[in-house]
Amino acid sequence: MLPRLDLAAVWLAATASVASAQTYRRFGTCPSLGCVIPPDQQDFLPGQEFDIRFEVHAPKNGSEAFNNGVPDEKFTATISKDGGRPRSIADFFKIRSEPSLEKWTFSWFEDLFAEDAKTPSVVNVASKAYRRVALYEPGTYTVTLNYFSGKKTTAEWTVRPLATKKKAKNVIFFIGDGMTTNMITAARLLAHKTVNGKYQTLLSLDDFPVLGHQMTHSIDTFITDSANSASALYTGHKSTVNALGVYADTSPDPQDDPKVETIVEMLFRIWGSAWGAVSTAFIADATPIALSGHSRLRSQYGVLIDQTLNGVQNYSWTKTDGPDAYFGGGADQFIAGPGSYQGKDYYAEFAKKGYSVSLNKTSLLSAPNDKKALGIFCKNNLPVWIDRHIFPENLEINNDPTGAAKPAKDLPGLKEMTLKAVDILHNRGGKEGFFLMSEAASIDKQMHALDYDRALGDLLELDDTVRATIEKLKKLRILDDTLIVVSADHGHGFDVFGSSDTKYAEAQEDERSKRNAIGVYQNSGLSQYTEPKPGVSYGTGANFPMNWDPRYVLAAGVGAAPDRREDFGIGATPRAPTTSRGGEAYVNDKDRPNGFVVNGTLPTSESQGVHSLTDVPVYAWGPCQETFGGTYSNIDVFYKIANCLGLAHGRNVTEGAGKRHGKGKGKGRD
Amino acid sequence: MLPRLDLAAVWLAATASVASAQTYRRFGTCPSLGCVIPPDQQDFLPGQEFDIRFEVHAPKNGSEAFNNGVPDEKFTATISKDGGRPRSIADFFKIRSEPSLEKWTFSWFEDLFAEDAKTPSVVNVASKAYRRVALYEPGTYTVTLNYFSGKKTTAEWTVRPLATKKKAKNVIFFIGDGMTTNMITAARLLAHKTVNGKYQTLLSLDDFPVLGHQMTHSIDTFITDSANSASALYTGHKSTVNALGVYADTSPDPQDDPKVETIVEMLFRIWGSAWGAVSTAFIADATPIALSGHSRLRSQYGVLIDQTLNGVQNYSWTKTDGPDAYFGGGADQFIAGPGSYQGKDYYAEFAKKGYSVSLNKTSLLSAPNDKKALGIFCKNNLPVWIDRHIFPENLEINNDPTGAAKPAKDLPGLKEMTLKAVDILHNRGGKEGFFLMSEAASIDKQMHALDYDRALGDLLELDDTVRATIEKLKKLRILDDTLIVVSADHGHGFDVFGSSDTKYAEAQEDERSKRNAIGVYQNSGLSQYTEPKPGVSYGTGANFPMNWDPRYVLAAGVGAAPDRREDFGIGATPRAPTTSRGGEAYVNDKDRPNGFVVNGTLPTSESQGVHSLTDVPVYAWGPCQETFGGTYSNIDVFYKIANCLGLAHGRNVTEGAGKRHGKGKGKGRD
Repeated sequence: MLPRLDLAAVWLAATASVASAQTYRRFGTCPSLGCVIPPDQQDFLPGQEFDIRFEVHAPKNGSEAFNNGVPDEKFTATISKDGGRPRSIADFFKIRSEPSLEKWTFSWFEDLFAEDAKTPSVVNVASKAYRRVALYEPGTYTVTLNYFSGKKTTAEWTVRPLATKKKAKNVIFFIGDGMTTNMITAARLLAHKTVNGKYQTLLSLDDFPVLGHQMTHSIDTFITDSANSASALYTGHKSTVNALGVYADTSPDPQDDPKVETIVEMLFRIWGSAWGAVSTAFIADATPIALSGHSRLRSQYGVLIDQTLNGVQNYSWTKTDGPDAYFGGGADQFIAGPGSYQGKDYYAEFAKKGYSVSLNKTSLLSAPNDKKALGIFCKNNLPVWIDRHIFPENLEINNDPTGAAKPAKDLPGLKEMTLKAVDILHNRGGKEGFFLMSEAASIDKQMHALDYDRALGDLLELDDTVRATIEKLKKLRILDDTLIVVSADHGHGFDVFGSSDTKYAEAQEDERSKRNAIGVYQNSGLSQYTEPKPGVSYGTGANFPMNWDPRYVLAAGVGAAPDRREDFGIGATPRAPTTSRGGEAYVNDKDRPNGFVVNGTLPTSESQGVHSLTDVPVYAWGPCQETFGGTYSNIDVFYKIANCLGLAHGRNVTEGAGKRHGKGKGKGRD
Repeated sequence: MLPRLDLAAVWLAATASVASAQTYRRFGTCPSLGCVIPPDQQDFLPGQEFDIRFEVHAPKNGSEAFNNGVPDEKFTATISKDGGRPRSIADFFKIRSEPSLEKWTFSWFEDLFAEDAKTPSVVNVASKAYRRVALYEPGTYTVTLNYFSGKKTTAEWTVRPLATKKKAKNVIFFIGDGMTTNMITAARLLAHKTVNGKYQTLLSLDDFPVLGHQMTHSIDTFITDSANSASALYTGHKSTVNALGVYADTSPDPQDDPKVETIVEMLFRIWGSAWGAVSTAFIADATPIALSGHSRLRSQYGVLIDQTLNGVQNYSWTKTDGPDAYFGGGADQFIAGPGSYQGKDYYAEFAKKGYSVSLNKTSLLSAPNDKKALGIFCKNNLPVWIDRHIFPENLEINNDPTGAAKPAKDLPGLKEMTLKAVDILHNRGGKEGFFLMSEAASIDKQMHALDYDRALGDLLELDDTVRATIEKLKKLRILDDTLIVVSADHGHGFDVFGSSDTKYAEAQEDERSKRNAIGVYQNSGLSQYTEPKPGVSYGTGANFPMNWDPRYVLAAGVGAAPDRREDFGIGATPRAPTTSRGGEAYVNDKDRPNGFVVNGTLPTSESQGVHSLTDVPVYAWGPCQETFGGTYSNIDVFYKIANCLGLAHGRNVTEGAGKRHGKGKGKGRD
């Protein structure tokens, strides 16, 4: 879910998000006037490619005004390893000519008072970028920027140990977007029955032998979004809200920020393995696109899809040759038109590069397993599991992936997409194996809408998908070669606190009395979702509720929400808790009309729930599983997977890319 | 925190809590009219002692009315192992004479409408209890109750495998009451600094190699309280809200419910090890008292303290000979008077049994390490870490543990109590080792009060205590012999969602504008609690915030709360979010007067926040640590610890108790 941004306001947003950090810092990763990007305290995989940018800031006005707003254009920078001799950047990285100087201006607000008064602080910048370098030797590097004759900014970078041996042939990385331990607990209660305190069946996640917690914060704020958190998981580098595959800089161009190589780029370059992404979101959304895209702005959907297929075009960069399996929603970026890059037909662009293209489940299931495959099944996000299975009437909207004015009803779920992707990737990866990311995106999207039933339905679909994938891997006899990781990118402050008697609540006339329908502690009782209801059968199998609409419903809430009405029961239509008047969010009177009004604890401009701080769980099973116990940063998930895949190399390796181009052993850069 | 109960309403509460389960079941563990207690699906450690009760119910009126309210007094019961021949209970357990028949009546409400209409359903009961039995052979047992000529209720019991070898000499079990992963994440952010996304220091918990999740629900409701959840952790048997060391029955006497043996009772009986409990709560509170007490009602504080010192008096039962170290608050149960059992002076009762008695920190620290030790430092719960360190003026209340009208200011914290307990237990346990439970109780208590700063201050105190304990164990050279487990008993639906600019909020006049001081996503910024503030120094060391009252404070919330006012900043006094009028909770106008009003999502009778559903983390370090990974029930924490201590015996063992009585090897029962 994209926080506070829309496509029409790209440049405004780019400035705003630099400008509006909580302490209203000029630039989150740079408290001084000289900025090294990647900044201090960053980690690198040996051989991982990245860009470097230096910026020198000269604020024209405000509390930091300096040198009449004239930045030092003669700055210099050095790098040294393990306390050794400092060398110039160009010399150290063997860059033949110094990059040219760039200059721009940006502005920011020092605090909310300044924002109300519309008095921005303006900063002039001088900058240079060194593109596509890598550090091969493990150790500690010190980068020093010298500017304004005598000022220094240093950054310490750590190159982690080498790990060139591939221990897992395949990796499947499931991401429950926004999924927390609290939600997993609630989903278990919905779908699995207890008898006197003992669960009679359990979640698939409950069978995983190793559990860890990862910290999700951004590089410059403690609450993340899905772009930079996905990027941390895939690159080992934290970034800024709305950025992916790059460290954010302050320049106006969201496509020139210093890039970092992603896991699928490295995996393709080094081993030539196959890779795929599956999501219930539109496929250009942050979590899938961060595997292959590089942008300061996640909302540049069109160009990000082009990068996925054709690679980064404006600078030399690692190619992936495109994903081998790519399934989700998001036809808006594929249909020729305003949503696609340069107005081109991306179904045709993918087909030209040899992809099978599926636009419904039937076609997906019969797509050949030896060809690259694209599958786009509706215009934006895929309808959620509950609407596909319990309220199919909600699919009756114009949602066809060709753009035709008709519904999309022959829809795959996460399970069908994932199992098909495994077939294709196993086939195409051959002995080089594969990497698959499979995302249950609407856990997050429905949590934002405070639609807990729909969020938990999609969490149960994820769990069901994990279970089916393990069975599939067993049948293919590759379970023992495959590392399975299930985790999330961030949380929402959700928890269940009791139950509510919907019959009693409905019979109460005033709002305070309706609250007395809620039972807490011993009055919570047991889940009625696992009890069969006469005449009701959804045919959704053992791992889902028997009854989504019992008299006693789970009472749940989040720690931060907009104004809304609550009745805790399932809604027959997807939830819209607020309506907007004059840019302010107010209670939507049509949502939960029998409920009681609760005023919010968020800025009045927020129409939805927001992300939260909590560490999220990491479940691991397979080769290297033992490395995933305990508590660590989200970037460590990347290093654990990368080391299990033997990606940490002490020299430039491009064999994989060569192989996949049918050229045998590759030489030099692709 | 005791949900909805007070001491004056003991019997009323006993009926009420049977009666008012959410689906308003007659008796949570017994959907039929014949009840086997322990009920179906229970697990047992081989050799663990327990009581059995059978109840036959005859409802007089209501939806279940049966046999004119006359229960079958001629019921019979059998037990068979692994599908073998059923034998009578008395025969199987070699009980010489059948217990006598008991009869009583209880009532319940079928739903909230019946409660409003004051139309209870009344049930007559016939019952028998078989006391102090044990199952020694691993396997599956089927217990069958035959009643009303032809009706049957069966219960399947599983006796887990034998594990007679002691792998850890000592166990230290830290419990953060109500502590969740979300709170641990928030506490880390308060006290530890990040530079560009990398923490420069971490929590002690973050160093633990193994992590698991435990499910906390009660036997008959999905939200637990601290009594039956503690009991599950210490006995391997889930129970009912407000019950500890027993399965709840429906009888009016809260002292006759079927008991289960606790880990310290077994450890003393089998190995003669030392044991202790430390808590920042009053020491008769659920979490510490569940180690040694057996009652349907946690609020029977006096008798529970007597049981701890003298053992269960009304039935034959395992003795523990009293704890070796017992430190906390709660003088009200020790001072001779209305709060103590039979009005006796329990300082004197403990002293008579050879205890040193400390009433302040100075005395505690100099107590002899070779004697049993009692330490009670104030009247009720210990003042929290924040009040002891940041707002010591809040200690200026009459709180002396002698009952004298003066403050208690020479107070130990969790760290001092725990380290002293380790010294004593190590000394007294000798080669038989020890078990220590150390509880940070006010994480829960302050979460109930929505006082997040005070809750997280006590969480940081717990983390600091864990760190210091590990150091202590290293110095004593027993770290490698000691299993350390850190976990919780249940959660609260807490999370951080952003930050709030207190200066901006204060300058806004209307309530909606105050909410616009909140920053989410990129506007959350970084923690300012780790930045030094000129002129402010608390002297609390590296593992606590530098500044508890920055301009930009953490914005946090819970999913369920009463009406209240929010400003997100630290309060100079402990928080009381509501006031009571006519049994209803309303916003306390004196709390957070500069904040904005938020209406609640709880029954209007709730004055505080409530417990939540979420699985809670389990951190493990030391012998058997590898058994604590993955996801499991809270009862499994008991089985993991018990197996690591070699408590699962295939015969009746009382050597330990004999040893500790100075009688050498014990014979038969103590």
